[in-house]
Amino acid sequence: MKIALAQINPTVGDFAGNVEKILAYAEQAAQAGARLVVFPELALCGYPPADLLEKHDFVARARIAAGEVAVWTAEPGRPAVLCGSVLATSAEIGKQVWNAALLIDQGKVQFTQHKMLLPFYDVFDEQRYFEPAKTQLLTELDGQPLAITICEDAWNDKSFWPRQMYPLDPVEELMKQWESLSESAKARPRVILNISASPFWHGKQDVRREMLAALARRHGAYVAMVNQVGGNDSLVFDGTSLAVRPDGRVAAHGASFVEDLVLLDTDADAVAPGRPLESETELTWKALVLGTRDYVRKCGFAKAVLGLSGGIDSALVAAIAVEALGAENVLGIGMPSEYSSLGSIEDARALARNLGIRFELLPIHQVFAQYQQVLDPLFAGTRFGLAEENLQSRIRGGLLMAISNKFGALVLTTGNKSEMSTGYCTLYGDMVGALAVIGDVMKLRVYKLSEFANREREVIPRATIEKPPSAELRPDQKDTDSLPPYDVLDPILEAYVERYWSAERIAEEQGVDLALVRQVLKLVERSEYKRQQAAPVLKVTQKSFGMGRRFPIAVKVQV
Amino acid sequence: MKIALAQINPTVGDFAGNVEKILAYAEQAAQAGARLVVFPELALCGYPPADLLEKHDFVARARIAAGEVAVWTAEPGRPAVLCGSVLATSAEIGKQVWNAALLIDQGKVQFTQHKMLLPFYDVFDEQRYFEPAKTQLLTELDGQPLAITICEDAWNDKSFWPRQMYPLDPVEELMKQWESLSESAKARPRVILNISASPFWHGKQDVRREMLAALARRHGAYVAMVNQVGGNDSLVFDGTSLAVRPDGRVAAHGASFVEDLVLLDTDADAVAPGRPLESETELTWKALVLGTRDYVRKCGFAKAVLGLSGGIDSALVAAIAVEALGAENVLGIGMPSEYSSLGSIEDARALARNLGIRFELLPIHQVFAQYQQVLDPLFAGTRFGLAEENLQSRIRGGLLMAISNKFGALVLTTGNKSEMSTGYCTLYGDMVGALAVIGDVMKLRVYKLSEFANREREVIPRATIEKPPSAELRPDQKDTDSLPPYDVLDPILEAYVERYWSAERIAEEQGVDLALVRQVLKLVERSEYKRQQAAPVLKVTQKSFGMGRRFPIAVKVQV
Repeated sequence: MKIALAQINPTVGDFAGNVEKILAYAEQAAQAGARLVVFPELALCGYPPADLLEKHDFVARARIAAGEVAVWTAEPGRPAVLCGSVLATSAEIGKQVWNAALLIDQGKVQFTQHKMLLPFYDVFDEQRYFEPAKTQLLTELDGQPLAITICEDAWNDKSFWPRQMYPLDPVEELMKQWESLSESAKARPRVILNISASPFWHGKQDVRREMLAALARRHGAYVAMVNQVGGNDSLVFDGTSLAVRPDGRVAAHGASFVEDLVLLDTDADAVAPGRPLESETELTWKALVLGTRDYVRKCGFAKAVLGLSGGIDSALVAAIAVEALGAENVLGIGMPSEYSSLGSIEDARALARNLGIRFELLPIHQVFAQYQQVLDPLFAGTRFGLAEENLQSRIRGGLLMAISNKFGALVLTTGNKSEMSTGYCTLYGDMVGALAVIGDVMKLRVYKLSEFANREREVIPRATIEKPPSAELRPDQKDTDSLPPYDVLDPILEAYVERYWSAERIAEEQGVDLALVRQVLKLVERSEYKRQQAAPVLKVTQKSFGMGRRFPIAVKVQV
Repeated sequence: MKIALAQINPTVGDFAGNVEKILAYAEQAAQAGARLVVFPELALCGYPPADLLEKHDFVARARIAAGEVAVWTAEPGRPAVLCGSVLATSAEIGKQVWNAALLIDQGKVQFTQHKMLLPFYDVFDEQRYFEPAKTQLLTELDGQPLAITICEDAWNDKSFWPRQMYPLDPVEELMKQWESLSESAKARPRVILNISASPFWHGKQDVRREMLAALARRHGAYVAMVNQVGGNDSLVFDGTSLAVRPDGRVAAHGASFVEDLVLLDTDADAVAPGRPLESETELTWKALVLGTRDYVRKCGFAKAVLGLSGGIDSALVAAIAVEALGAENVLGIGMPSEYSSLGSIEDARALARNLGIRFELLPIHQVFAQYQQVLDPLFAGTRFGLAEENLQSRIRGGLLMAISNKFGALVLTTGNKSEMSTGYCTLYGDMVGALAVIGDVMKLRVYKLSEFANREREVIPRATIEKPPSAELRPDQKDTDSLPPYDVLDPILEAYVERYWSAERIAEEQGVDLALVRQVLKLVERSEYKRQQAAPVLKVTQKSFGMGRRFPIAVKVQV
């Protein structure tokens, strides 16, 4: 059977737009001779809809949208559509909706499979919304049996994972049913379809490929996973849909970070041509570009503005923004204080020139002086300190927001994950913005991504990459005045923030002084309040700040 | 049996402090002659610990803390302790911890009951963390059978709720087991214990009382619910522990919003003396006071600072802060602009005088003028608008944060729920702060609470209560320039934000023009990005902004 895998980029809640997109891809699949075209999980409403699922209207609109797809399939010769959507349950007990896969053919929904395994860890809250499937059944199309699963349903293979998260394995259950099929059906290739909305993080593509190959080999089946593509708030879905043959070799694969349609023919014996492996740095770059583009556009904006300090973080974000939105849509603002070096301003200007973006210089020292004058009745006799440092950062935030309000450009936040982890950032200052583009990128990775940005020509000035990092909020300030060097700091932070290691384990495994480790971990604990008021962070690691990491603020935590 | 209900105020993660508190209350219970003293759900670690539950150290510390309580019970004559804690599971599949009730007596844990029903709606994420109990068993103490349940386990009675959330009813299951007890055990009174961490919202106390009475009558049992008290981030637990007799009458009740220890004697036939009912306004006031006090103190602070505009919202928050922290710990800052009326400054000053707090005046027009000068290269030729309005608000935010940083006082945010719903508030401006004290209080309720604040003498000046609400960000501005009057607006917002009604239903049931309703709902939809960067909001309704209301930002939602 010729099956088209259509990885589309839906917008959450945009039923009209999503249906239009689905029908356009279904049309392409028809032209390519597919009998079935498969779309991602919850493709009709977009993933993740979150608490929109609790609104009756929303669920009703999804039903209408499914009807529109059904109408399209009514015309003879058109392929069947397998598509994810939300469905109201009829049950008197439990949650009110299902996460469903609808097999739509010849004008109506021929078969429905509900999702059985509902993830509820990290960024996933599916048990909050969905009633789990009670049964998992094989269906068929033109005599070809199909095992239809939804995302997590294929992620609980006991022979692949060291620890199972759920007692059930829907794939195993489906494969058992194969035995009781008619002889003619049994003679057909085994086909497992998986509709997914599986967000990107470093290394995830490898996990998916290995897992799907293991599943294919274990069950002697074709496994075809269709994954959503696109950014939705913090999450970036990479697509990278994949069809694996029963021998574990790749039969077809979708592109990463763009919409795509690829064909799997389960009656042919094709192996997909190999493709050059992309480095994790390149994948992360693409994730950040797509996440930025989709956030800005799905929020109804075209333009972005950001502060350019001459430092590497803002330079990298500017480079990402230009690739995401086009140079004509990015505005860079230099906001030097009396502590800014001349070099920094020149570096910012050179960056803007290299990127071809507009650059404006708005010095902040006069506003700062005026603030100090107003505060003098309260501050007289106190020493220059944190209040004054943060104030400079907040003046910059105020200027960026004024420009944003005036010209309708979203502010991009430029802080990295090392800063967000340690609280080395100013709430309402450099943390202002609609989106924290590199808030899930530790400083050492910021360097790698900056080198990637310069892969064809120098975009980020060499001086920006090579000078010692500084916030430039007091004379001769360096990051290393307050923090250990990043090659010591980042591994500590990764272990604590992403893997929840204890101080003792970090000190031992990383060969770092325990007192230093504790000092860093205390910074993390003390800055939780800042992170809870941060802009959405584009997630590119297994554990990023935001919805997937939920810590209380008013606590007494021992580190 | 004499059972003491000990509603304590734990701090999340403070095992040493929580154990100390538990033992102090256990000592009191011993002196009162109790055979058993019951503490709230997860009392050893505090509720809600959120993702701290995913840290091995945290779970290990809870085990040590339970051991310390066990040691205390070893001494002859001391009561048994029933206490909530987190326990590592031994299971190979599923989640790694249980939410457990430990019955500790004579130096060791005699019985453990895991929580079976794990709430995962609104602010609750328990399925994210906990493995559900597989069995629910009766236990006994000195021959008295005890049915031990944990919070939600008692909240699924099919004869009480119109819709059950779970297929199982642990209480029913336990009561069935009563039949198979020995004759002597069966002759004892039926006793259902429930350890809870049940947060406050308008009307919740009535729901609990009615539900527990229905449970008692249905099963012919004493039902004793011990509820946590205290503020933990957004949630305020009201205590109000309750013991109900088999006939549904109240046998004992704990106070609201303070720690308390009350006794239930299941062999006596006592009825608790009636107590004056508190109005919802009074309960909300107390919730906000406790929530503010605990947030500030559990964050390690003593002092608070806030902007006093002369308006009613900031006046109310100041009055709450003074009751929570003491007048000597509250600093009010007036920050008039050129659009502020003289009356506003006088009202703010009068409020500060009435409250006995320090008041400082920091005019913002010079800083504003300086900002405008800096922005002139970009803004020249544009009209005074949103950018300039917000800028004034952001200057105020910057001043408050500078004072906060300088003097170690938390900033209290003064916006109300009507503003947060419609986005009639400035991100990084009046939204700055550590805690949004009245962020779950609609404007009409702000008036009621302000009258309550004045119950004994005029604290909030009459002029502040009576003048038309205004943000004073442009000449002669009034809230009604942009919004319908609050007696029309608030019901629309409550229906949409708290009950998820459609525009059509709101227009019909409230007799309001559909176009106006849609216009309001669009404001709600367009301001989600602001709410996601808001300070934690003290929850006092069934649906407040924050963790219990999770909506995406980059969406296309039809209203």
